[in-house]
Amino acid sequence: MTPLRILETALYATDLRAAREFYETVLGLPVYSAVEGRHVFFKLGNGMLLIFNPRETQQAGSGQVPPHGAEGPGHVAFAVPQEELEMWRERLQQHHVPIEKEVQWPGGGYSLYFRDPAGNSVEITTPIIWRYAERDFWDTGS
Amino acid sequence: MTPLRILETALYATDLRAAREFYETVLGLPVYSAVEGRHVFFKLGNGMLLIFNPRETQQAGSGQVPPHGAEGPGHVAFAVPQEELEMWRERLQQHHVPIEKEVQWPGGGYSLYFRDPAGNSVEITTPIIWRYAERDFWDTGS
Repeated sequence: MTPLRILETALYATDLRAAREFYETVLGLPVYSAVEGRHVFFKLGNGMLLIFNPRETQQAGSGQVPPHGAEGPGHVAFAVPQEELEMWRERLQQHHVPIEKEVQWPGGGYSLYFRDPAGNSVEITTPIIWRYAERDFWDTGS
Repeated sequence: MTPLRILETALYATDLRAAREFYETVLGLPVYSAVEGRHVFFKLGNGMLLIFNPRETQQAGSGQVPPHGAEGPGHVAFAVPQEELEMWRERLQQHHVPIEKEVQWPGGGYSLYFRDPAGNSVEITTPIIWRYAERDFWDTGS
């Protein structure tokens, strides 16, 4: 018995407005819900990206759930089709988001790394870097 | 243009051996790769759970990728079929992992919360909490 998949991925940002604007405009993610000062949640590809203000969620009683909240740069990677990589590079440029690093992986696949406003390391990459077939990523039903 | 989905979810643990044992035995996740003292990676459901030792990955040059590494409790949620929830509760009990909290969500769905050895808040839940249909989670091709 193993879980079906990861349903929620969490990042932390004390400036939630800046985070929201970044993930909405640069990444193009739809906001699913938000609570001013506490969190902003995005929905994509059968999963959720949850961005929390750790100063709020570290407190017991800030919600129905147990306290959590990390400090310092986290990491998330988003899968995109190989053929869109160049358009992502252009979009980052349009939004004046510097690309910190690019990696051509020896086993195939490519990654663009940049930072969100909170300093989290964000990666745009292709499913093949983990030996996933791109076609399996299209039918997400979200 | 939006990303297809989240491909990598990161957590941090300074004791990687304890983390590896926990996610292998309690969560039943297959280890995909590991570098002693730096990271252990798990593959599931068209995604990757990456657990890093932040003391290593905060250093520039600890790998090919930009530095990152958070401190303090992060969060991850795993999707399971509704009908397996009771078996997960039993498995946690078998491994002497205390359930910190249970939530019956008003809109439907149920969550079990517990801690990994590093203190990260881990959740076992049902896709319906985010209005995902369970059937969409089966065909992951992983």
